[in-house]
Amino acid sequence: MWESARVKVAVIGLGLIGGSLLKALAAAGHAVTGYDTDPVTRELAGAADSIAEAVEGAEIVALAVPLPGLPGVLGELARLGDEAGPAGHGALLTDVTSVKGPVRELAAEHGIRRFVGGHPMAGKETSGFAAADPELFDGCAWVLCLEPGETDLADWLTVAALCTAMGARVVPATAAEHDRAVAGISHVPHLAAAAIARRLVGNPLAATLGAGSFRDGTRVAATRAELTAAMCGGNAAAVREVLAAVIDDLQLRLAELGEPDPVGALVPALREAGDARRAWPARPGPATVAPAGVEELLALGRDGGWVTAVAEDLGTVATMRPESGRNSS
Amino acid sequence: MWESARVKVAVIGLGLIGGSLLKALAAAGHAVTGYDTDPVTRELAGAADSIAEAVEGAEIVALAVPLPGLPGVLGELARLGDEAGPAGHGALLTDVTSVKGPVRELAAEHGIRRFVGGHPMAGKETSGFAAADPELFDGCAWVLCLEPGETDLADWLTVAALCTAMGARVVPATAAEHDRAVAGISHVPHLAAAAIARRLVGNPLAATLGAGSFRDGTRVAATRAELTAAMCGGNAAAVREVLAAVIDDLQLRLAELGEPDPVGALVPALREAGDARRAWPARPGPATVAPAGVEELLALGRDGGWVTAVAEDLGTVATMRPESGRNSS
Repeated sequence: MWESARVKVAVIGLGLIGGSLLKALAAAGHAVTGYDTDPVTRELAGAADSIAEAVEGAEIVALAVPLPGLPGVLGELARLGDEAGPAGHGALLTDVTSVKGPVRELAAEHGIRRFVGGHPMAGKETSGFAAADPELFDGCAWVLCLEPGETDLADWLTVAALCTAMGARVVPATAAEHDRAVAGISHVPHLAAAAIARRLVGNPLAATLGAGSFRDGTRVAATRAELTAAMCGGNAAAVREVLAAVIDDLQLRLAELGEPDPVGALVPALREAGDARRAWPARPGPATVAPAGVEELLALGRDGGWVTAVAEDLGTVATMRPESGRNSS
Repeated sequence: MWESARVKVAVIGLGLIGGSLLKALAAAGHAVTGYDTDPVTRELAGAADSIAEAVEGAEIVALAVPLPGLPGVLGELARLGDEAGPAGHGALLTDVTSVKGPVRELAAEHGIRRFVGGHPMAGKETSGFAAADPELFDGCAWVLCLEPGETDLADWLTVAALCTAMGARVVPATAAEHDRAVAGISHVPHLAAAAIARRLVGNPLAATLGAGSFRDGTRVAATRAELTAAMCGGNAAAVREVLAAVIDDLQLRLAELGEPDPVGALVPALREAGDARRAWPARPGPATVAPAGVEELLALGRDGGWVTAVAEDLGTVATMRPESGRNSS
């Protein structure tokens, strides 16, 4: 019942994520082709020599290029679709970029009819095809975007079946919900880490005294500035919303520090933060089988739940929700 | 020349830091006595049954009680000094609490004449005498406060010799410099981590998507709220100053995110943060020997440098400064 159908998938862009995807899909028994702009990577991956060749006959095309590269690839796929039919406009497209609202708009601008945006929450310190790993997605949360009245449910379930077959926990969410959530758990934390790291500028004494809380709290500040800027700038609307909330929160702490009893004033908010952090990551609750409906899936995602498998007839999904009030660590 | 004299030291408060201090001083050949309010800890540590008994004949008294416990102990030492002479008012006092301005004020209020405030930047996940470790201070930065016109230089060098003999890197700083530096590298990072962790409240989707940057960036938000509040509230003036600077910095990022090219606008500050973080921790430069003067020592601390040994005649110190523009990791 939960066996995923074998399909032909083309992966465009063979860096860490695209390369891992190519290997994981091949390991799951799918027919895969790949393409990368870099000839050395193509050689290493045994990839096709052009996008046209890679997507020829593909039922699903997965775009694993960085956000700035997407318009070019979408343009070429649209052109191929106009010329030849099935590829481009015909194939089901998905992607792996870290913002989903802007990619949804890009796909619409290029007239892509069948599109399911995705974002696997996976990464490594290393990059490039040489670092690609077919196990990279095992256990990782993989958001697949589901827009009521827009996304075809069967398309969504088809991509979800591919992802769960690679061991991913598929999280249904709208693009807007995704972008707000990742602003909170990744993009704004990068900006906060940078603001803390900048306290060292012109202050060697502080640098000498820095220990564990500084080390961990600023780890991601060492990310290449262009990458962090692209990530935050590409999700500017949601990042602004969450950053404004964080600033408001810090303003309240600043006010509490000025009260006659700053220690007592600080405790309630710090306790709420501590409770939230200690409850993370949540321990998974029992597995359930649910009907595969758009609203049911979106409710599952909002509850912090995920899909672990898709029935072959696409009628039901196996799901898990976090157990409330307990954590797994 | 660099051999430290053997002295009699009393350690009041035998938790992780005090217990480790007792063991490290004993291992370095000093005559140590200890005291703790907890009878089980006293039994375990072979400690004295009262503060009076512990400090009897001690040349140096190290206070390793939490900040709220300090007034009581200082009051008792002052009383003993009035009664008996050498202890209390007579002995050289040092402490290990994490804020130095308020402790300096407390010592003055209690009429302590010979006082050198200290703060070893050492810790462990565990606490209590059972977790005490004589190697805890090996390689750790240990701030010793030096106030021009107030701290006796010979007293400062005497305490510094004790600390370097335990392997610590002794960082000279005024109490105000210390408090501002630790606000930046520890206290404000705790508040920022809490503000990020609070984004999970009522947002199970975000919790499910949280990965490495959330995990590390919020690790210290799991600290017990009362501890973080005491730490920040006890250093309220400096924390407010640094927190206001961090908020201003985040406001600038918020404005940059609203510009027509947010990616380009964000890069300069993120690059400065990345450079600062990648240069941390600094690689130590060559060892030098310098005259032991108050201004020279404070300049060393401001440059991010530290004392590695004190000459027996207290005339010179062996020092190190970070090598600029390189890091050790």
